[in-house]
Amino acid sequence: MATVPSCELCDRDGGLLIARNAQLRIIRAEDADHPAFYRVIWNAHVAEWTDLPPADRSAIMQVVAKVETVLRQALQPTKVNLASLGNVVPHLHWHVIARFDWDARWPAPVWAPKNKEVADATSRLPIPLTELDQQVAQVLNT
Amino acid sequence: MATVPSCELCDRDGGLLIARNAQLRIIRAEDADHPAFYRVIWNAHVAEWTDLPPADRSAIMQVVAKVETVLRQALQPTKVNLASLGNVVPHLHWHVIARFDWDARWPAPVWAPKNKEVADATSRLPIPLTELDQQVAQVLNT
Repeated sequence: MATVPSCELCDRDGGLLIARNAQLRIIRAEDADHPAFYRVIWNAHVAEWTDLPPADRSAIMQVVAKVETVLRQALQPTKVNLASLGNVVPHLHWHVIARFDWDARWPAPVWAPKNKEVADATSRLPIPLTELDQQVAQVLNT
Repeated sequence: MATVPSCELCDRDGGLLIARNAQLRIIRAEDADHPAFYRVIWNAHVAEWTDLPPADRSAIMQVVAKVETVLRQALQPTKVNLASLGNVVPHLHWHVIARFDWDARWPAPVWAPKNKEVADATSRLPIPLTELDQQVAQVLNT
């Protein structure tokens, strides 16, 4: 598998590992302000989504869709945010983030400055984060 | 087609219209700091990507991939940024943005505060924006 020296997503999981298969893995970002923040990371090192052949592009997006579906069903978020940026770490990863109208940056993207302090974001989720992690982990079995 | 009163992407194109078909349209955002900033907008009003049935999810992503491919081939950007957020305008649209290491927010996302002034971003592109628009418009014919 293609790896790049000193790429942090080649060297490490890149967050709390939730599930992994031969192609990709799902991690949780452990962001206290945005607790339901997952990433779907392609295991091999490619920078851009279109560096993947079409079948692999579709494979990662199907996992993104399944994670989004779990977040919507489990949390009824105000909105789901999806993004593949990679300016700092150019190793293909998709952010899948449940956003709430009470969260610390709403309605701005999670990369904007915080507009309020929300100390208890995790406990505001309708289910415990460990239970959510288990539901997210199941997407690689379906 | 489902439309929602006072939704700005139901009421208007939402930018400079580049191309349109029955399902979706491509606009350019006319952002002076990030001139190669396009959006692929689903014509009917849905909020989340997974509100679409799988075939339509795939259809919009195939257009996103084609726009990304045009930007990469025409501009050789440092990175392409893809995102579907919709916190402010919850009508499905994908941002497709060519990013450069000289741009006003690099390496931060375009939603972060500007970290420098770049007055001549459009003229730094290797081809005129009107020519880029024409190449992007072609993706709905391929």
